[in-house]
Amino acid sequence: MSDVAIGVDVGGTKALALVMRRDGAVLDEMLAATPHDTTRQAGEATAVVVGDLVERLAARHELDLRATPVGVGLPGLMRKDGRLAYAPNLQSASGADFAALLRGSLASDRVFCENDANCAALAEHAWGAGRGVDDFVMVTLGTGIGGGIIADGSLLQGRSGFSGEIGHMVVEAHGIPCTCGGMGCWERYASGSGLRRLINEAAKEGRLATLLESHGCAEEVRPEDVTLAANEGLEEAIDLLRQVSWWLALGLSNLVVILDCGHFVIGGGLSSASQFVLPFAREYLAGLVEGYESRPTITVANSAFGPRSGAMGAALVAFERSA
Amino acid sequence: MSDVAIGVDVGGTKALALVMRRDGAVLDEMLAATPHDTTRQAGEATAVVVGDLVERLAARHELDLRATPVGVGLPGLMRKDGRLAYAPNLQSASGADFAALLRGSLASDRVFCENDANCAALAEHAWGAGRGVDDFVMVTLGTGIGGGIIADGSLLQGRSGFSGEIGHMVVEAHGIPCTCGGMGCWERYASGSGLRRLINEAAKEGRLATLLESHGCAEEVRPEDVTLAANEGLEEAIDLLRQVSWWLALGLSNLVVILDCGHFVIGGGLSSASQFVLPFAREYLAGLVEGYESRPTITVANSAFGPRSGAMGAALVAFERSA
Repeated sequence: MSDVAIGVDVGGTKALALVMRRDGAVLDEMLAATPHDTTRQAGEATAVVVGDLVERLAARHELDLRATPVGVGLPGLMRKDGRLAYAPNLQSASGADFAALLRGSLASDRVFCENDANCAALAEHAWGAGRGVDDFVMVTLGTGIGGGIIADGSLLQGRSGFSGEIGHMVVEAHGIPCTCGGMGCWERYASGSGLRRLINEAAKEGRLATLLESHGCAEEVRPEDVTLAANEGLEEAIDLLRQVSWWLALGLSNLVVILDCGHFVIGGGLSSASQFVLPFAREYLAGLVEGYESRPTITVANSAFGPRSGAMGAALVAFERSA
Repeated sequence: MSDVAIGVDVGGTKALALVMRRDGAVLDEMLAATPHDTTRQAGEATAVVVGDLVERLAARHELDLRATPVGVGLPGLMRKDGRLAYAPNLQSASGADFAALLRGSLASDRVFCENDANCAALAEHAWGAGRGVDDFVMVTLGTGIGGGIIADGSLLQGRSGFSGEIGHMVVEAHGIPCTCGGMGCWERYASGSGLRRLINEAAKEGRLATLLESHGCAEEVRPEDVTLAANEGLEEAIDLLRQVSWWLALGLSNLVVILDCGHFVIGGGLSSASQFVLPFAREYLAGLVEGYESRPTITVANSAFGPRSGAMGAALVAFERSA
């Protein structure tokens, strides 16, 4: 049985690989840009980059890849058998039998794939902000919103392994068009893209005077700028964060009534960058959740491992599934 | 070990009790009106009616109540310990320690309480339209919408036992006010109440000429009348069912992406009375579910036991928890 595993988290823009001990200690890590080469066979370009990261880490730590389990977290509908059935944010790999590709290139049968947010949920459950909690949802707020559900003590898989696609629950019927083809999906309102839209709206309606003055036009005001300005006390920026937090709380509330989860772990840029978003969201939950007063307190925490939780969870998957 | 159990399903208007064998065969049943007496201690009036039904059935079948397990399904947030924490549709029992009340009046410690839709899900899973299916949601379409979730092969409980309150997921931000205090809850759009609202809207907009002619005014057109007229081929009635089916499909779609459930069992008046609602909802799902083409077929079936599934599931709970 191997003492260490390699975990890789493939995001829409970059891939993070790390070497992890069984107790969750991260020994080393390495970053690469995620390729979006659609001229090759589905997933091939991604598999080359992931394979390269894994081989370089293995060489650096003198690991035998035939004995070292490898876990990979990928965005989208990841089937239990390792096929990435649908990946709107990684279209060049959509449909690829990713586990098979990597097993081939690494000449190892100890490669295991899982949805990236599910990986993050598993890492937070094992060692992080969801430790000891039987019912919580990991929510990753990036360009979109990913989710991993721990229910009754273990990862909820669903029929094909596709559970937790929480960003595509509709919270506004006939709402804003989404990359998935739907309309009114939660991730259009409560993610970085949601804040982007709120910035544009506020600019148009004259509620963004100070930020526009310093940045020129709405397009130049990035979500990070809003967070920074809010941290410095600018009311118009705090207002924007209040709005995006309401949308965040709305989706969390839906998850509470459906799953009766008592806890959320929030990861991704939007949450960690702001001292406002989580407190605002907690406040709004009280007015949104059915029977709020009759339930035990609902808690919302920041991810303990930030951008590392996905790769750590992928390594955990590697340990568990190779055992 | 008892060969039979008594199951009771307490709805907003009536309570159905039945005697059931371990294999799901129903031997007898009895109906009573649900009291809404708020002058007495919370739950007391309900407990008297339920206790009376149970005692009468026990007498009729010469059952010893100290040996016969009793299960009771109740609407609302039912805690794992038997307390009905919150029940917007049975306010006179909201907050009652219902299991304790019944244990007292029946002088038996073999009384077990569970949410009514959870009971229905368990019965359909054991013998009905969810038999052999590891991931499905039971959806009861009445005045509101109740839910019971079977995930990865067993009933999803959640932290306090409150999971499956699917009627209160918000599908229209800032939408129609709900009895729960929220706004835009799914049950305001896709239940009998939703159809009621659609009738009024259609009447106001002049899209209900034939039904208004035969019934006088919108208030006189009941949901049942729409179903009947649709079954007879009246286009304006079919249109209304198409609309309510779209709202139904919208919520089902949210459940698919969150839970990755591949199957739904639909109970309650609206579904059984119409040959249109389920086929329409199936069609709409294709356009609503993220990555629909990449998923195995999603199926939607009618409840196998209709109004009996809740009480049958309550009896099943009694068997399982007294074992």
